[in-house]
Amino acid sequence: MSAAMRMRPLPAGLAPRAGRFILPRQALRPSVERQALQASIRRSYATEAPKAPISPVSKPPKKRFRFFRGLWRATYLSVLVGGAYLAYSIYETRYPQEQVEPDPTKKTLVVLGTGWGSVALLKKLDTENYNVIVISPRNFFLFTPLLPSCPTGTVEHRSIMEPFRHIIRHKKGTVKFYEADATKIDHERRVVIVSDNSDIKGDIHQTEVPFDYLVVGVGAENATFGIPGVKEHACFLKEIGDAQKIRKKVMDCIETAMFKDQTPGEKERLLHMVVVGGGPTGVEFAAELQDFFEDDLRKWVPDIADSFHVTLVEALPNVLPMFSKTLIEYTEKTLNEEKISLRTKTMVKKVTDKTIEAEVTMPDGSKQYQVLPYGCLVWATGNAVRPVVRDLMSQIPAQKNSRRGLAVNEYLVVDGTDGIWALGDCSATKYAPTAQVASQQGAFLARLFNNMAKTQNLEQELKHLEEIKAESKVQEDQEAIDKEIAKKSKAIRKVKTLSPFEYTHQGSLAYIGMERAVADISWWNGNVASGGSLTYLFWRSAYLSMCFSTRNRILVALDWMKVKIFGRDVSRY
Amino acid sequence: MSAAMRMRPLPAGLAPRAGRFILPRQALRPSVERQALQASIRRSYATEAPKAPISPVSKPPKKRFRFFRGLWRATYLSVLVGGAYLAYSIYETRYPQEQVEPDPTKKTLVVLGTGWGSVALLKKLDTENYNVIVISPRNFFLFTPLLPSCPTGTVEHRSIMEPFRHIIRHKKGTVKFYEADATKIDHERRVVIVSDNSDIKGDIHQTEVPFDYLVVGVGAENATFGIPGVKEHACFLKEIGDAQKIRKKVMDCIETAMFKDQTPGEKERLLHMVVVGGGPTGVEFAAELQDFFEDDLRKWVPDIADSFHVTLVEALPNVLPMFSKTLIEYTEKTLNEEKISLRTKTMVKKVTDKTIEAEVTMPDGSKQYQVLPYGCLVWATGNAVRPVVRDLMSQIPAQKNSRRGLAVNEYLVVDGTDGIWALGDCSATKYAPTAQVASQQGAFLARLFNNMAKTQNLEQELKHLEEIKAESKVQEDQEAIDKEIAKKSKAIRKVKTLSPFEYTHQGSLAYIGMERAVADISWWNGNVASGGSLTYLFWRSAYLSMCFSTRNRILVALDWMKVKIFGRDVSRY
Repeated sequence: MSAAMRMRPLPAGLAPRAGRFILPRQALRPSVERQALQASIRRSYATEAPKAPISPVSKPPKKRFRFFRGLWRATYLSVLVGGAYLAYSIYETRYPQEQVEPDPTKKTLVVLGTGWGSVALLKKLDTENYNVIVISPRNFFLFTPLLPSCPTGTVEHRSIMEPFRHIIRHKKGTVKFYEADATKIDHERRVVIVSDNSDIKGDIHQTEVPFDYLVVGVGAENATFGIPGVKEHACFLKEIGDAQKIRKKVMDCIETAMFKDQTPGEKERLLHMVVVGGGPTGVEFAAELQDFFEDDLRKWVPDIADSFHVTLVEALPNVLPMFSKTLIEYTEKTLNEEKISLRTKTMVKKVTDKTIEAEVTMPDGSKQYQVLPYGCLVWATGNAVRPVVRDLMSQIPAQKNSRRGLAVNEYLVVDGTDGIWALGDCSATKYAPTAQVASQQGAFLARLFNNMAKTQNLEQELKHLEEIKAESKVQEDQEAIDKEIAKKSKAIRKVKTLSPFEYTHQGSLAYIGMERAVADISWWNGNVASGGSLTYLFWRSAYLSMCFSTRNRILVALDWMKVKIFGRDVSRY
Repeated sequence: MSAAMRMRPLPAGLAPRAGRFILPRQALRPSVERQALQASIRRSYATEAPKAPISPVSKPPKKRFRFFRGLWRATYLSVLVGGAYLAYSIYETRYPQEQVEPDPTKKTLVVLGTGWGSVALLKKLDTENYNVIVISPRNFFLFTPLLPSCPTGTVEHRSIMEPFRHIIRHKKGTVKFYEADATKIDHERRVVIVSDNSDIKGDIHQTEVPFDYLVVGVGAENATFGIPGVKEHACFLKEIGDAQKIRKKVMDCIETAMFKDQTPGEKERLLHMVVVGGGPTGVEFAAELQDFFEDDLRKWVPDIADSFHVTLVEALPNVLPMFSKTLIEYTEKTLNEEKISLRTKTMVKKVTDKTIEAEVTMPDGSKQYQVLPYGCLVWATGNAVRPVVRDLMSQIPAQKNSRRGLAVNEYLVVDGTDGIWALGDCSATKYAPTAQVASQQGAFLARLFNNMAKTQNLEQELKHLEEIKAESKVQEDQEAIDKEIAKKSKAIRKVKTLSPFEYTHQGSLAYIGMERAVADISWWNGNVASGGSLTYLFWRSAYLSMCFSTRNRILVALDWMKVKIFGRDVSRY
């Protein structure tokens, strides 16, 4: 109908003027006669050209329907495109390409570790330029920010692991990987001594790997600050194995508390879960544990409802020191609402198999010695230098005054060495030992190594050009070659001027329980600080997007959905 | 249109007679004139009452469209109904009801174990009639048929575990559960001595649990047949922990084989995976391992492609002895196609850390002693009596001649005892020690205990009636009471006549690799034997339907989908 109307001759008063349709003033208030005329015209056209019966569908859609139809189409299209992209990216992950065997005359680059730093380096490194060898006791990359969700089963451990073989099989040039401990770096002889760390040992289980360039990214180990009993009785939270151990211990505490005729005091002790460390790991794990209790344990093991209790211990006056004051207050308020006991200014002095002894600074400044009985203790604080790094430091005089790890210059070169770089938690820089820093350092080193290779190639070409020039007799040829040489030299200068490593802080995020999170995000030149349930959704989507692969992302999302639908598992494993 | 026609006056010949519309004979064969008349009436009505324009949709649909529309509606409806049912069943699982604390004067029924037998018993037992106490070192039910898929990651261990607390929280009467080992059954004193088996021990970690009735369902342990070295060097495949150990060992073998400068012979040895036992567990695990290699390992660790090798060792002349001859042949052919070395008639005599020594019966009947180097050995054969069962047997003279486990009568009562039953792999019956048998025995015992409680109740009522009768003086009352007594007595007789336990074999199923399975299913009075890819689909759907809960079913299906989409993980854990 609308098509028919558009084609009819213009009624009087709607005359074309100066090439455009101009509405005369009286047309704006149509008289009764004009309306009648228009109606008759409409009718006459209707009789002149008999139309197909008009179905209700062909009526001009109302505006809002048109909007919804557009929305539907856009959704449909984006789902299609998204699905195709997803399918392609999964296909690409599953079917790696043939790899190039790098030229054996190229330099050997040995990378120690498969954590944030090393993996970020590997990801951006053009592996065709070097003989790359990676050595790590762990044949997977672990997405550590979600590790605190692992012991309670909010996320399955396999979902936050990316097999390292997946990563290296997608590089253009082959990368060798040895699952082994680097037990010693011999700085003089330029070799790494590696030792097979697994239970299964072959005839060869200790050997040397020579290097031209070495990147040390072995991370740090758990610091116990020399407090007696921590190593023997506490669980740490750094690796997958740690998460599994905590899981088992928490469930054992619960089942042991439920043992026949267990005394009430002992029950109380066994169900007291203590987390030491008010950083993100400690806060997140305490929150996850309390969630686990509130959402699941309380329902399935109702007898523990009155005794289960989580305590968070921190030596400083506040938790989450990297966050703004408002967010710290919000966090402490939320922990309080969740009934997590927060004990700040509490310095652990000694740990036995059943108690924690701590010195508490009271509000009046006086100190008090307290003894807390506990069932399970998780130690989520402090980084210590690994033995292999300590040994390397002892070999180099320039490292004498470094305490926290390998001192490096602004290009991450280990002070006092040539061709050895360090990144992440094993290096001592002005930055905090976080995944973010290590990851940016890795990307920086990848750029550095790619540039080095480019420079080398350009220099070779330059040399070649100069040889040609020397042989050439014709003046014109020489001029052309000179031009080319100038170009190459400029390119080399450009590539060589890599600016030093500079860290850009993206922000801090922490889950604090009850589906709330806090976030301090760098935005333009300022900061955006927020906390609550919306921030929790942001936290989840940020972590999802930060996962290593599409596979990880989907698995983590599935885990979250599983927990939402079925709750968490209360089995022992 | 039809509404308009229904309202028009009746045309001539369709006159109401005797209050009903009766069609005169000639109306059945309408003449041309009548048709014309009817058409004109229809037309005149059409002009009298202008109708809405007829949209093309209201045309009578073609038959096949109608079929598809019906199909679509049926699908739509069944998805809706199915979804609603699923949502309800998940809701029901997640939110257990309030439970009744059973009357402390009732008898105490102690159940040992949380395997197939005990869980089947618990599932059907009316727990309001007894004080039920379950003791097991495992606080979950394990769906053992899918355990061979666990080490390779085809199925995640959490997907085939059902927390035991989920099971007992859904019973009407409270059930107590102690995660502990039953270390001794004192048959005379009628107590079970239990001991906390976990790493975390409370003040009370050993105690006695008295019982009136006892059901022993502790299963069996791995039999090594006294072969030296098996216990020290082999992995078993009975529990979740075993599956995790195998996983780690297989991955360690691969990484150790990839160690720098490993000799070719040693590489060959490390990548030789040996499975001993040609029963379903052994065959399925060997097949899963080969699948893992073909689908995933070969791609991600290409250097092992030429050396990885699975061998299946069986002492008997055939694998899968419970299947028909055709299926055995089909299985052996398939294993051969998969390049799994099948070594039948091979009796393992000794195991060291790197070799298996075996006596092989050659085709000519002669015997040969062979030494096989191996990397990982999985021992999937044989059941041995657990110490607690052996100890109980030693207390009872009637058990003197029993070797395979507790001898029981046709009601599963342990010979020589009163009020002690045994079921599953710890009992010695004429049936094979399978999940199917244990499960049916559990259901039988549940019926038995429910009947016992019913009998007791009826007998109490009977006693009460007889008391009333004795007090009553009126003849008529006494007659009525007599009738009631006769009724009760009959009911008691009926309840008491529980026929002995009889096993109905449902069939056998086994996965044999390359997405093929074999099945021997009881059907009417005969058997249906089939093998191949369709049987594999049947195997999958049968196992899905046999899973304990909707949660397990969905998790297992998700795992299968994950593996289909992303492949299996090649990380160490």
